[in-house]
Amino acid sequence: MSKFWSPFVNNLVPYVPGEQPKLSKLVKLNTNENPYGPSPKALAAMQAQLSDDLRLYPDPNGERLKQAVADYYKVQPAQVFVGNGSDEVLAHAFHALFQHGRPLLFPDISYSFYPVYCGLYDIPFEAVALDEQYRIRVADYARPNGGIVFPNPNAPTGCLLATEAIEQLLQANPDSVVLVDEAYIDFGGVSAIALVERYPNLLVTQTLSKSRSLAGLRVGFAVGHVDLIEALERIKNSFNSYPLDRIAIAGAAAAFEDVAYFRQTCQQVIASREAVVAGLERLGFEVLPSAANFVFARHPQHDAAQLAAGLREQSVIVRHFKQARIAQFLRISIGSEVQNQALLNALEQLV
Amino acid sequence: MSKFWSPFVNNLVPYVPGEQPKLSKLVKLNTNENPYGPSPKALAAMQAQLSDDLRLYPDPNGERLKQAVADYYKVQPAQVFVGNGSDEVLAHAFHALFQHGRPLLFPDISYSFYPVYCGLYDIPFEAVALDEQYRIRVADYARPNGGIVFPNPNAPTGCLLATEAIEQLLQANPDSVVLVDEAYIDFGGVSAIALVERYPNLLVTQTLSKSRSLAGLRVGFAVGHVDLIEALERIKNSFNSYPLDRIAIAGAAAAFEDVAYFRQTCQQVIASREAVVAGLERLGFEVLPSAANFVFARHPQHDAAQLAAGLREQSVIVRHFKQARIAQFLRISIGSEVQNQALLNALEQLV
Repeated sequence: MSKFWSPFVNNLVPYVPGEQPKLSKLVKLNTNENPYGPSPKALAAMQAQLSDDLRLYPDPNGERLKQAVADYYKVQPAQVFVGNGSDEVLAHAFHALFQHGRPLLFPDISYSFYPVYCGLYDIPFEAVALDEQYRIRVADYARPNGGIVFPNPNAPTGCLLATEAIEQLLQANPDSVVLVDEAYIDFGGVSAIALVERYPNLLVTQTLSKSRSLAGLRVGFAVGHVDLIEALERIKNSFNSYPLDRIAIAGAAAAFEDVAYFRQTCQQVIASREAVVAGLERLGFEVLPSAANFVFARHPQHDAAQLAAGLREQSVIVRHFKQARIAQFLRISIGSEVQNQALLNALEQLV
Repeated sequence: MSKFWSPFVNNLVPYVPGEQPKLSKLVKLNTNENPYGPSPKALAAMQAQLSDDLRLYPDPNGERLKQAVADYYKVQPAQVFVGNGSDEVLAHAFHALFQHGRPLLFPDISYSFYPVYCGLYDIPFEAVALDEQYRIRVADYARPNGGIVFPNPNAPTGCLLATEAIEQLLQANPDSVVLVDEAYIDFGGVSAIALVERYPNLLVTQTLSKSRSLAGLRVGFAVGHVDLIEALERIKNSFNSYPLDRIAIAGAAAAFEDVAYFRQTCQQVIASREAVVAGLERLGFEVLPSAANFVFARHPQHDAAQLAAGLREQSVIVRHFKQARIAQFLRISIGSEVQNQALLNALEQLV
C-alpha cells in the first residue's frame, strides 16, 4: 500500500483470471474459449479496417454493432449497450444499477468477479447458497435486496435456470434489477432477452468471447429497457467515450451477422460436450448437467487438485477452484476433438 | 431517471466528445487526429493477429506493449500501465489515486473530462484559473489538495508548461499525486517521464491516438513509480482483466517500435502547424503558442461560434467550446497540407 492510494484500494481483492500460458503446445481447457476460430466474415470485416483510417476515432456509440445485435434479437438499438468485453459491461452495470445500500444477491458458487465488483463500488452483498444439486433455488432470493445477479447457465457449474424461474425472480423483485449474465447461453439455453419487453427490471449481458469465438477481441453487450441502457451509457460516457475500437466494432458486428457459422460451431461444441461427458462418466466422474461450453466434474476416488496437477504434467490445463463446496470439482472447457481426446487419455492415466 | 439507477447516476454530466461525423468528404479538424496513417509496421503487426487465435483471450497484462513503452522511455515494464485509451487510464487513475476527500486541482481551462471523472468517483475539485495569457501559474497550486492533474501541453490551449515548473509542483506537493496528461507531448514538448525515477508522486499518461496515429485502436498508458502503477493494476483487475485486445496490443507495440516513422510524421505535423499559424496570423487571428497538433486561435473582429458555423457550411469542422474565457476561440487540429489549405481558404471567405 501507499499513502497515494485512494483508501479503498488497500482493501481491493482483484479478480484472478484463468492462466493464459505463453506456451502454445498445451491443451488449454481452462478459460472456456471456443475451439473453433471466429467467422471468416468477421476476419474479413476486421481486415477491411486495417488502413490509414485507424488514425481516426471510432464511432463512440458502436452503432453498427448495436444494430447487428438488435437485428439478431429483434429489439431496438436503443435497448443495446456495447462494451469492452462483458466484464466491462458488468462493471458498469454494478456501478450504475446496484449502489442502493441494500445487499446485492448472487449465488455462493458463481462468477468470482461479482464480489470483486462489489469491492470496487462499495456494494454490500449476500451470497445465496445453491442447493445440494448446485442449482439456484428461486425461493432463497425472497429477501430484501438492491439487485440480483447470476450467470445463466451458471459458472462454473454449467447448470441452467429455466426461463420460468427467471420470470418468478423478476416478478418477485419489481423494485430491483435482475441481471442475467448469459456468457454461455448459446450452448444450451434460451436467452432471457425475449423477456426484456415485459420486464423493465431485467438486464441481460452477453459476450462475443465464447459462442462467437472472439475472446481475443474483447466485446460484450447488454440488452434491457432503455432506462437501464441509459444508466449504462451515462457511466460509459463518464468513463471512456470510445471503449470499442474500429476493428472490434466491425469484427463483432460481422460475427453477429454470420448466423450460419455461429449455429454450426455451437452445434459442434454441444456435440463434443456430450462426448466428453460420456467419456468422463466412463472414467467414473460425476458430471453436473451442463448447458455451457464446459463441464464441471468430480471423481469420487480422486482429489481434484491432484488430478489438475496430474493433467498439467501431461500438458493439459483445466481450472480448479480452491473454494468451499467445489474444491473437489474440475472445470473443463470443451475443446476440439483432438483436445478432448487428449484430456480423456490423460485422465485415464490418473484414475 | 429511474428508480433502478444508483443515485449518483442522476447527477452525472457525461463528457461530450468531439463530433465523429459519418460523412467522409468533410475536412475534419475537430478531434486532433493525426493526418498521417499509422506506421506500416503497426498495420502489419495487426494483420498478423487476424487468425483463428482471436478465439483465445489476449495477454491480460499486455506485456509486449509494456515492454515496448519501457524500452522507448528507458524505464522498467513494472513502471508502465496500459489501458483502453488514455481516457480509461485517466479514469482508473482518478479512482485509484484521487479519492482522499481533499479537492483535486486542475486548470479552469483544461480537458473537460476531468470534472466528469470527479462526478463519477465523487472527488471534490477546484478549478484553478489560468493566467491572462492562458498559462498555468505554479504558485496558484500552493493550496491543500488531494492531487493535481493537467494536460501538458494543455488542451485546448496548446500551451506547454516547462519541466522546471513541473518539478516545482512535484516538490511542493510531496503528499499528493501530480498527474501529467501528455496526450500531445510529442508535438513540441519533452516528456516528464524522465522525472519518474526522482518523484514517487509523479504519474504521466500518454495515448497512441495522436502522435502514433492510432485513435481508432484505443490504446493509452501511464508511467510512474511501481506503487502508483500497482494501484492502477488493482483497479484494472477489479474492473476488466483484459482491456486490450490482441490486435491492439500488437499494433500499439509495433507503433512504439517504429521510431523512425513516428519521428518523421511528428516533424511533418509540427512543420504544418507552423504554416497554419502563419496563415492564421496573416488573416488577423491571434494564435496561442502551441506545442500540440492543434492551435487555439481567436479573431478580434469575428465571433468564434459564427466562424465555426461558417466553416461548417464549407465542410470544414473545427471545435468550439461554449465556455467562459474561451468562447471566442476555435480549436483547430493540424491536418494534411490539403486540409490545412482548405481551412485557410474557407476562413479567407469569412474574415
